[in-house]
Amino acid sequence: MHRLDRSINALVSSYGEYGLVNYTGGANLPSREGIADILSDLDEVIYPGFREKENLEHDKLKLIAAERIYRTARKLITEVEKSISFSSRSGFFSCGHGGCHAVAELIVDDFFDELPMIRKTLAADVQAAFKGDPAAKSIEEVILSYPGMDAITVHRLAHFFWSRQVPLIPRIMSEIAHSRTGIDIHPGAAIGESFFIDHGTGVVIGETTVIGENVKIYQGVTLGALSVRKEEANTKRHPTIEQDVTIYAGATILGGETVIGRGSTIGGNVWLTKSVPPETVVYSKTGNQALGRK
Amino acid sequence: MHRLDRSINALVSSYGEYGLVNYTGGANLPSREGIADILSDLDEVIYPGFREKENLEHDKLKLIAAERIYRTARKLITEVEKSISFSSRSGFFSCGHGGCHAVAELIVDDFFDELPMIRKTLAADVQAAFKGDPAAKSIEEVILSYPGMDAITVHRLAHFFWSRQVPLIPRIMSEIAHSRTGIDIHPGAAIGESFFIDHGTGVVIGETTVIGENVKIYQGVTLGALSVRKEEANTKRHPTIEQDVTIYAGATILGGETVIGRGSTIGGNVWLTKSVPPETVVYSKTGNQALGRK
Amino acid sequence: MHRLDRSINALVSSYGEYGLVNYTGGANLPSREGIADILSDLDEVIYPGFREKENLEHDKLKLIAAERIYRTARKLITEVEKSISFSSRSGFFSCGHGGCHAVAELIVDDFFDELPMIRKTLAADVQAAFKGDPAAKSIEEVILSYPGMDAITVHRLAHFFWSRQVPLIPRIMSEIAHSRTGIDIHPGAAIGESFFIDHGTGVVIGETTVIGENVKIYQGVTLGALSVRKEEANTKRHPTIEQDVTIYAGATILGGETVIGRGSTIGGNVWLTKSVPPETVVYSKTGNQALGRK
Amino acid sequence: MHRLDRSINALVSSYGEYGLVNYTGGANLPSREGIADILSDLDEVIYPGFREKENLEHDKLKLIAAERIYRTARKLITEVEKSISFSSRSGFFSCGHGGCHAVAELIVDDFFDELPMIRKTLAADVQAAFKGDPAAKSIEEVILSYPGMDAITVHRLAHFFWSRQVPLIPRIMSEIAHSRTGIDIHPGAAIGESFFIDHGTGVVIGETTVIGENVKIYQGVTLGALSVRKEEANTKRHPTIEQDVTIYAGATILGGETVIGRGSTIGGNVWLTKSVPPETVVYSKTGNQALGRK
Amino acid sequence: MHRLDRSINALVSSYGEYGLVNYTGGANLPSREGIADILSDLDEVIYPGFREKENLEHDKLKLIAAERIYRTARKLITEVEKSISFSSRSGFFSCGHGGCHAVAELIVDDFFDELPMIRKTLAADVQAAFKGDPAAKSIEEVILSYPGMDAITVHRLAHFFWSRQVPLIPRIMSEIAHSRTGIDIHPGAAIGESFFIDHGTGVVIGETTVIGENVKIYQGVTLGALSVRKEEANTKRHPTIEQDVTIYAGATILGGETVIGRGSTIGGNVWLTKSVPPETVVYSKTGNQALGRK
Amino acid sequence: MHRLDRSINALVSSYGEYGLVNYTGGANLPSREGIADILSDLDEVIYPGFREKENLEHDKLKLIAAERIYRTARKLITEVEKSISFSSRSGFFSCGHGGCHAVAELIVDDFFDELPMIRKTLAADVQAAFKGDPAAKSIEEVILSYPGMDAITVHRLAHFFWSRQVPLIPRIMSEIAHSRTGIDIHPGAAIGESFFIDHGTGVVIGETTVIGENVKIYQGVTLGALSVRKEEANTKRHPTIEQDVTIYAGATILGGETVIGRGSTIGGNVWLTKSVPPETVVYSKTGNQALGRK
Repeated sequence: MHRLDRSINALVSSYGEYGLVNYTGGANLPSREGIADILSDLDEVIYPGFREKENLEHDKLKLIAAERIYRTARKLITEVEKSISFSSRSGFFSCGHGGCHAVAELIVDDFFDELPMIRKTLAADVQAAFKGDPAAKSIEEVILSYPGMDAITVHRLAHFFWSRQVPLIPRIMSEIAHSRTGIDIHPGAAIGESFFIDHGTGVVIGETTVIGENVKIYQGVTLGALSVRKEEANTKRHPTIEQDVTIYAGATILGGETVIGRGSTIGGNVWLTKSVPPETVVYSKTGNQALGRK
Repeated sequence: MHRLDRSINALVSSYGEYGLVNYTGGANLPSREGIADILSDLDEVIYPGFREKENLEHDKLKLIAAERIYRTARKLITEVEKSISFSSRSGFFSCGHGGCHAVAELIVDDFFDELPMIRKTLAADVQAAFKGDPAAKSIEEVILSYPGMDAITVHRLAHFFWSRQVPLIPRIMSEIAHSRTGIDIHPGAAIGESFFIDHGTGVVIGETTVIGENVKIYQGVTLGALSVRKEEANTKRHPTIEQDVTIYAGATILGGETVIGRGSTIGGNVWLTKSVPPETVVYSKTGNQALGRK
Repeated sequence: MHRLDRSINALVSSYGEYGLVNYTGGANLPSREGIADILSDLDEVIYPGFREKENLEHDKLKLIAAERIYRTARKLITEVEKSISFSSRSGFFSCGHGGCHAVAELIVDDFFDELPMIRKTLAADVQAAFKGDPAAKSIEEVILSYPGMDAITVHRLAHFFWSRQVPLIPRIMSEIAHSRTGIDIHPGAAIGESFFIDHGTGVVIGETTVIGENVKIYQGVTLGALSVRKEEANTKRHPTIEQDVTIYAGATILGGETVIGRGSTIGGNVWLTKSVPPETVVYSKTGNQALGRK
Repeated sequence: MHRLDRSINALVSSYGEYGLVNYTGGANLPSREGIADILSDLDEVIYPGFREKENLEHDKLKLIAAERIYRTARKLITEVEKSISFSSRSGFFSCGHGGCHAVAELIVDDFFDELPMIRKTLAADVQAAFKGDPAAKSIEEVILSYPGMDAITVHRLAHFFWSRQVPLIPRIMSEIAHSRTGIDIHPGAAIGESFFIDHGTGVVIGETTVIGENVKIYQGVTLGALSVRKEEANTKRHPTIEQDVTIYAGATILGGETVIGRGSTIGGNVWLTKSVPPETVVYSKTGNQALGRK
Repeated sequence: MHRLDRSINALVSSYGEYGLVNYTGGANLPSREGIADILSDLDEVIYPGFREKENLEHDKLKLIAAERIYRTARKLITEVEKSISFSSRSGFFSCGHGGCHAVAELIVDDFFDELPMIRKTLAADVQAAFKGDPAAKSIEEVILSYPGMDAITVHRLAHFFWSRQVPLIPRIMSEIAHSRTGIDIHPGAAIGESFFIDHGTGVVIGETTVIGENVKIYQGVTLGALSVRKEEANTKRHPTIEQDVTIYAGATILGGETVIGRGSTIGGNVWLTKSVPPETVVYSKTGNQALGRK
Repeated sequence: MHRLDRSINALVSSYGEYGLVNYTGGANLPSREGIADILSDLDEVIYPGFREKENLEHDKLKLIAAERIYRTARKLITEVEKSISFSSRSGFFSCGHGGCHAVAELIVDDFFDELPMIRKTLAADVQAAFKGDPAAKSIEEVILSYPGMDAITVHRLAHFFWSRQVPLIPRIMSEIAHSRTGIDIHPGAAIGESFFIDHGTGVVIGETTVIGENVKIYQGVTLGALSVRKEEANTKRHPTIEQDVTIYAGATILGGETVIGRGSTIGGNVWLTKSVPPETVVYSKTGNQALGRK
């Protein structure tokens, strides 16, 4: 026990020495658990009747929606205020005369303004998934069980906060989706309507990626950077995928100037660091494997 | 605040416009949270003494098993009834004169009839994992910590409901396992005894895949379709893997007519769209990489 | 109902027949849920102020740390005692005259002794991640949202218990991290300071891997074995990666005698089963793909 | 175990024989646990800042209030609908053409209309308690710790629903308060402003009691009926207490025609079955006890 | 902080000195929280459809009952085994050759055998309450909101275990009911059918009380002992109340030889230490109070 | 719905008008729920092995005690700081130069210093209860199920904070015990060792009561004030009970100058407003009741 007491003292001392501690001025960072709660609430707001354990009663729909939205608004204001206050301390963000609380309220009000449009976009994504997968038996199955829908839903929410310069929250959101789905979409990525990711494990979509409408992506696809030098952090480092493109499993497309022209098909395991013109098919040359008897 | 009130009204209106809402006739869909509870209960029924936080008391084993099974049966009947009612509304399933509740009871009774046989098959899977991985120190370690065991356990449960034409539940089950393990096995896949997946992240096994006994698969393996056209939804689109086959990490095998003959070995990263005869070894030709000095 | 009663009896009988049951002598195995709780507690001890939903009050830091450490110590002693008792029953571990409880206490005391040093190492890992990813905007973002940090944090804890011959617990820990991050690091792997895994989904690092300081790894990298024969379980089966090496996405490096020399760079999707000298660049020869018009 | 199976069958059979079972037509009764939740929510709506474990943030007061009220409204509509449907089945209540749900909505809307007036009345009750007890150090202490305040708060809510002929809910509410405080006020009692009960254990106030403004009551006081014949259920059976009356501990006042005139004082343990004129003091004649040496 | 560390040591030392600690031989006492859970489960078994927050589904009634009974049986065996082991260590109870676990199983099996008869008795109590209180509007109201029903329900369960010489559990049960209702019935009391307690706060019914059928009691009634000498612990110290007796509020009846003859009525606040013959009315002589003008 | 929106606005407006709202300057009051948690934790610290649902492991006793005490200390400092800050705002308490947090820490340190002595006193109270009640079968039964023990345990804790001028917390503590037991002891009362309250419902012990050692009290006893004028708040208003006194059920003793001499016995329902000398027996003169035939 004496040893444990010594370890406690050593650990508390180490809090001063090695960092990894957040308590500057009593201020605080957004909470991953808090963000996860918010995402779960928003999921129920976006897909009413699909997430509840109990039946959703139709004649209480507005009561339920209002309660959920007030609750989520309250929690979001708290987390956004913590995030922009953090940013404001570092000088990256200015809360202005009204203070960070007022700015947080404004951002959250804007977010709920935008939410019906986000739902409209997600409805198109659901259609794209249903059409894009022969194994999908119904729209309901897509909403209930497709990890790609989970990932794109979270992305469209995270991207809103990214576009408003809110720090930390968008990345925490995208990592929550990454952990659940294996799909890692940076909140900075700009993704068009009717987007579908099938299976999805191992997909990586980088910060400055631009994706057009009606794009379909399979598991293990990387849309990445050629260089990972810190100095190039503010340049476009990830590719542009134009509309109507399909990218099969395991393909890797790298570079901020790489453009996959509209209507193209990129085969499985293809490795691309240069642009391809519209309506192109790119596939791995087969034949590079050998067969033998055991 | 006035803005938030307007957003609430806009969202509730959007519930009528953009879909993504489930409340037709007060009926409801199976709940993902409910299915996750059921899987957790079934896990304790299948592996008694391996999942409890507290010691399992041997002299209460039948009491505990009976309680768990009654509870799980009750929950399963609820979810199965919701699922087949959904299917019945769409005309894909007929509940007959007895009604969907009676059919749900019958299916759940059949399920618990089958469960001892499923446990027997899983016991063989555990043995296969222990034999197949030199890093496995004990049978207990396999049951406690192998994601492949988690995935195949859930698959064998999901496949039962799939084989009884219950919609939604099997896919929700397989996605829960996919989320936890990164292993995506469609509940339609027919998988023989003594099946072992090592590491597993990124594995995809499609709906019409057929796998024989004693097959071993590594991370990143895809058993997929060549075509993803919706019209071909009811054909065999995924490969057949005969018994005693090993498929190493990252290999891709595509096509409903592709058969990997018994006893074959498919090397890492191999890309196959055609059948190979029994006892064949297929490997990537090395030498396609370049070395240079920095 | 009668059928359900029969199924209960059949299942309870099957507990005697098919194994998968743990209740020998009333002893018990470590609990996955219990280990998950411990990891969550340790996460708060290691990163104070980053995990709490509520503000961390600075003037209660020692009170909070002491409470957390006493609680975690108590839980850890329970789980370690169960684990080494299990091992002791199989003859792999001897608890000596003092009994397994005393040995468990000693191991846990040693663990908390070591924890400040583990925090120091993790502080270097955080710095490496911040420097290594242009998309990282702040140290706080790395701690809050990088799955690679989650994986390496759990690994450094699991590796301590592995190094003390505690069975089961290290593997349960690593599988918890694998499930959350898609990164599968065997607790036996020896990993130097300033280690960074970006994105990470699909990474596999085998039991006897040795990794030097300042190594960077991307998603889908496998550091694996050439042979998976059970007889070779106690040999070095996985590669050695020397300091300052970068391995890009999807690369596969196999074999216990394979050494990647210091300062080398391994390109994406490269497949290596042989050593490379220091300061080497290895990349896939491009050109093995074909383009066509649709 | 066989015995237990027999007992289960016997119990399920007894459900048909001995009553005590509610499942007629799938309809259901209000839930005590549900009503307790509602009371807890309403307590927070009525006394904002006094019930929360965490600080109440002033600038989120409207968000918080709106969320709480929407949630409580939703729950109340459910419970009121169940209650009046129950009453409607027995013919005591008619839900009319609109159906019981619409009536429930109307009653709940009226309730929230009334709530600001109820708060005003309770503010007067708090003042009366503070003035009436020399031991009360502050208004805050009264709100935080006086059981009489708990009882009268619940009564004023229960009385609203009683006055709207909602069955069951008012009595469940009053029993919840009775259980917590030992104060048993029938929801039918009509109680004026500035009412104070000190200590309160054992107080009983009957269904047809009428109490004027500014009345003070101590523990163990009964305001009861002389007759308990079922046939007299619809008559005034309990006393009338006019304004400015004080009733000390243990006094018993019985009978529907008994009127305690305004400004009177009733001493401890007094037993009254007849009216007393205004400004009267009634006390027990002392002297009826004997002293002896041990 | 140093002071707190000293206090921890002083407290742990005091555990050896002042008693109040239970840890002899690793054995344990029944848990109040555990008993409360069991009572809550039994309440649902006894009054199906009256306690659930959600609707009770009729077609799952047997499944639900079986699950509840298996769960409660398991918990009860645990608590009974702890209780009789405690008693056995003190020599008051002998578990015999089969051991305390087997005895506990037998007692619990007997309990569930008895439960349908207990339900039958409680059905008569419910009828008595409905008939006995003019304010009761329905049978359902009695089951949902009468504290007397709560107290007598718990008593009939506690009395079973008392009659089987199980220590501690019956008293813990009766105190749980006492805490909720203010009604303190010793589990040893023998109480006939159709028993009704109205309001109930302050009622005390002693260990050796005997009560006939169809007795009605009001708040504040004491059925107590004249002597409280420890030496008389095993004698009949509390009164006998014959059938059809009514005892009004605040009456005190003391002594083991005091018999209230059948059909008698005891008035409010009466103090009795001697027997009264059947069909007697006893009332306080009024007139012992004085009135004055203020 | 529009009506509900109007009600929300009206309620939020009423927050400004009718008071009952606490949000001055963001400061906050102690939380009843928080105090209840603290009492529950302290109960486990005081009676180790009597409150846990699981077995208390002897060899972890110090670990468990340390964890509990650190946790409780942290929570207590929070609540005490809120309480004295409240008092400090009103000018009743001065936190001095160090600030209220430092004073709170000091008070809590003193409290844990005192706790071993409080345990010693409670050990004597347990003995007194066991000796004083013939129905008590064991010391363990007293600790597990006597409401008088619950009340005196909480009182001795509350009294410590009262004696240190901490506002609100002592009264919240005493009301929590009152709610559970029906025993209402003002935290200001000074109570000697070996105190026993049997049954207890309805007991009221006023703020300035002084009770000597070895006093026994039954249900319904009031130790109260003659006058309840606010101006006399700071005088001794409640009686003094000297050592070795027994007071039977329902007795009322009033007045700050009333002294019950040592060794006296006060009979049931006695009403006393004057002192009695030592070794006196006071009893109600019987005979004031009438018997009649029905």
